[in-house]
Amino acid sequence: MSERPGPTARVRVRELTGASARDRRDDLATEEPLEIRLTSLDGARRTVAITMRTPGHDFELAAGFLHAEGLVTPGRIAAIGYCTDEDVPPEARYNTVTVRLRGPIPDLPALDRHFLTSSACGVCGSASLDVLRDRCRPVPSGDVELTPEVLYGLPDRLRAAQGVFGKTGGLHAAGLFTPEGEALAVREDVGRHNAVDKLTGWAALAGRLPLDRHVLMVSGRASYEIMQKALAAGVPVVCAVSAPSSLAVDVAREFGMTLVGFLRGERCNVYAGHERVRA
Amino acid sequence: MSERPGPTARVRVRELTGASARDRRDDLATEEPLEIRLTSLDGARRTVAITMRTPGHDFELAAGFLHAEGLVTPGRIAAIGYCTDEDVPPEARYNTVTVRLRGPIPDLPALDRHFLTSSACGVCGSASLDVLRDRCRPVPSGDVELTPEVLYGLPDRLRAAQGVFGKTGGLHAAGLFTPEGEALAVREDVGRHNAVDKLTGWAALAGRLPLDRHVLMVSGRASYEIMQKALAAGVPVVCAVSAPSSLAVDVAREFGMTLVGFLRGERCNVYAGHERVRA
Repeated sequence: MSERPGPTARVRVRELTGASARDRRDDLATEEPLEIRLTSLDGARRTVAITMRTPGHDFELAAGFLHAEGLVTPGRIAAIGYCTDEDVPPEARYNTVTVRLRGPIPDLPALDRHFLTSSACGVCGSASLDVLRDRCRPVPSGDVELTPEVLYGLPDRLRAAQGVFGKTGGLHAAGLFTPEGEALAVREDVGRHNAVDKLTGWAALAGRLPLDRHVLMVSGRASYEIMQKALAAGVPVVCAVSAPSSLAVDVAREFGMTLVGFLRGERCNVYAGHERVRA
Repeated sequence: MSERPGPTARVRVRELTGASARDRRDDLATEEPLEIRLTSLDGARRTVAITMRTPGHDFELAAGFLHAEGLVTPGRIAAIGYCTDEDVPPEARYNTVTVRLRGPIPDLPALDRHFLTSSACGVCGSASLDVLRDRCRPVPSGDVELTPEVLYGLPDRLRAAQGVFGKTGGLHAAGLFTPEGEALAVREDVGRHNAVDKLTGWAALAGRLPLDRHVLMVSGRASYEIMQKALAAGVPVVCAVSAPSSLAVDVAREFGMTLVGFLRGERCNVYAGHERVRA
């Protein structure tokens, strides 16, 4: 396709209900690759990531990804744009984002696994924590407090802020809230990690980092990757509709974060940092 | 931890219900990194991937990943074991799988993005299909037919075959079924793509590939990555509880696969290949 891909795509579908069938049209979440490139003033350039994502908020996705992975701080970004390099054909232009840096491109020999190459002790959960310890500080304690009522209200507020399409269940959502439960920004994507990158990238480009007075709410589960991204942005409270993983809890406890899971109706589980939840 | 990590981990949690709180214990899905290494008879070795996964069926995960990515066919595998290399400390041994090859290690300079480096036309959805076209054949048509009744029964059969823990919603599940709806194998993981790799790796190590008379059912959504893995294993029918992405539908249509989404109760949507579903 030569035009800019949209967040949804219309397809024909055969709907079966019991023994009957009818053909109709359906809207699906668009999934397309996004290539993130770095360039420097001296003309050097480098592809740092290719991720499958839902088009939209691509510059924020790039900025958030680069910040969360510890590669580029927001202040080092001179400009972000879709790529017009000669080697990019028109049909790929809106799938390639170039981030122009003020300084040189960081030297990162093994970007695909950088989170482990800096670890001396091999591949294990505690090594994954060591890597975060090298580049992230614990979130500050005591500044943020939530009531159970605010927690219970977050899933509905997240859904209310999603687009019409997102409500159909085809997309993951991530929302940034105040401790009083006010939605500041909500982003959606086929990939949960992308939705969080779009959110923290929005904050990074708006000069709002660290997000140390904020609550992150995600529509699915909480994994190591989600916690890593939240921690890099300084978010003290992460809430998920579904279960956290063991390593997500480890990250929360190690870095002083509050982690809430199974947040549905008037119920939730607080896996770490329950001092921020007024009982 | 120096012992072998299990699939679940027990943690303390504060459960909030309405205005009341109580402390109890909860079981979470374990998330730990797995490093997949290749070695050859001449002593060469190389790390090809590090993925966050739930421990269990690690050899199948490695075999399935290598096959799905087009790196190593099952016949080239001489042995698979946990790593006892000197540089791997005890606490990481069960997080490092070494796949010993009969021949040399394939030369793959950019493993983290190999699915795009072989593409001439830049980063876009159709380029992602081109890459698959280079290494996968369309699935054969006509051999497999399902009734709506079999389809409607798959989600319950998948849940029934999951472990007790998986039923709590902390894990993704992938199941392999006959066209009559009989479950052949079910695998679980915090990562949906890992659950599928464990399943196709099981088939690869058992000499069952291609899976051209089989149905793959996944607990979540169907993305490009899931379809790519199913296609590499020759699976003609993929069913998902939730929505497919646009690119998942593109892959199904391009390669003659049947793709069923929103499979819940006595309803589903057939996005591609509806000739395999008897109306």
